[in-house]
Amino acid sequence: MKENINDTMGRRPLILVTNDDGIGAPGIHDLVSAVAGMGDVVAVAPDGACSGQSSAISVNKVLRITEHSDYKGAKMYSVNGTPVDCVKLAMHALLDRRPDLILSGINHGSNSGNNVIYSGTMGAVLEGCMVGIPSVGFSYHSHDQQSDLTACREVVDRIVRTVIESGLPSDICLNVNIPKGDSCKGIKVARAARGFWTEEYADYKDPHGKPFYWLTGHFHNEEPDNPETDLYWSDRGYASVVPVRPDQSAVDRIGAIERLLGQQ
Amino acid sequence: MKENINDTMGRRPLILVTNDDGIGAPGIHDLVSAVAGMGDVVAVAPDGACSGQSSAISVNKVLRITEHSDYKGAKMYSVNGTPVDCVKLAMHALLDRRPDLILSGINHGSNSGNNVIYSGTMGAVLEGCMVGIPSVGFSYHSHDQQSDLTACREVVDRIVRTVIESGLPSDICLNVNIPKGDSCKGIKVARAARGFWTEEYADYKDPHGKPFYWLTGHFHNEEPDNPETDLYWSDRGYASVVPVRPDQSAVDRIGAIERLLGQQ
Repeated sequence: MKENINDTMGRRPLILVTNDDGIGAPGIHDLVSAVAGMGDVVAVAPDGACSGQSSAISVNKVLRITEHSDYKGAKMYSVNGTPVDCVKLAMHALLDRRPDLILSGINHGSNSGNNVIYSGTMGAVLEGCMVGIPSVGFSYHSHDQQSDLTACREVVDRIVRTVIESGLPSDICLNVNIPKGDSCKGIKVARAARGFWTEEYADYKDPHGKPFYWLTGHFHNEEPDNPETDLYWSDRGYASVVPVRPDQSAVDRIGAIERLLGQQ
Repeated sequence: MKENINDTMGRRPLILVTNDDGIGAPGIHDLVSAVAGMGDVVAVAPDGACSGQSSAISVNKVLRITEHSDYKGAKMYSVNGTPVDCVKLAMHALLDRRPDLILSGINHGSNSGNNVIYSGTMGAVLEGCMVGIPSVGFSYHSHDQQSDLTACREVVDRIVRTVIESGLPSDICLNVNIPKGDSCKGIKVARAARGFWTEEYADYKDPHGKPFYWLTGHFHNEEPDNPETDLYWSDRGYASVVPVRPDQSAVDRIGAIERLLGQQ
């Protein structure tokens, strides 16, 4: 499958686009459209919806790549795996050089607050960051796949142009959330709001009387009035940008744990 | 399914045990054995191998709970989902009170270095931390499910007793890795080593000549001589303990990104 996709295209940035809603989702087409003029674009996305896949990888499964029709000049492929699988396999089997930028989205639904830990959109972005490529995830605060995402265009355009021009610190990637509506008031850099899920499962009985469960519930923001947080700003009509670090080591807690375990 | 599992058991700590190798793996049985005397133990684990599931959740799937025979006095259940599903569903449908402690493992294989981002073992632990419960993951540096894990017993015993007695800072959980061998030299608190995967896929052709791929490769440690890192110590016969923070917001980078985006 390694076909020198870009070998005639000179020195434009190579942009790998993925998502977790699948290759058929409107959001990835909007993202491809938004960046088509900025570089050589290749989209490699799951073959179906992969929400909630976090940084999952397919360990015991055969992976295949399917080629789709080009869109706005971009090569389009699907993989029967997770968003992280798509990034890894694109780099292994599809791209003839390292991408200069990895973009994920536009996700249909919020990836704000500490809830982002479950996000497949951000799983792909963290993967990009871990292999040293500037990476950004975009999410739009509506699950309606018929939403008009043109309001996102300005935010995507500004952030992607900035990252192409200036790069990112190598230890972080960006999580961008765009509020509902036709436009947004501006961009605010923040941290993830703390919260938790409530009423997490719908309970059912099958026709034999046996219980089964379906994940549901909603995110309860514990700090809705804190302007340090992403949700504060998206609730007020701004796009939020959270710098995200894949390394979760809490270096500032090493001393405390050493004392706890009697090491100091 | 909510059956007041523990309502006759008084005030002993309630310990929820899970893993990502599945309810049938030797490692979870070893972990249950190691902590059986320390509290009321309930194990809720995936019904099969779930390696590489990270913090994935089952969004569009019916979940079911299956009860298994008790083991060393512990109730044993399986769920047809991910490690995070197991934690969430245990709290929703099986436990009659909040667990005092969540333990995951003992994983058959390392969860060291920044590679830990893919770990289902640690996905469950991060979930516990996010809902405010002291949580610890244990991994043993051998994939051989026939390994003698009794060497792990001392490490598990010491860490679990400490956490039951003293708790943990609420914003972190622990990732414990135990080196191969019959014993370990001691315990060292560290951060995750930086590295990356090499030769990530095996390439095949199916009988029709079409390509398919299977994830493989090995972790390349970029800082093998750095005593700040977990792998430095496990390579030298020590158990490593990494304090891990679910919130990946890089607060120290907010200013840099504001400047990049022209916000300051």
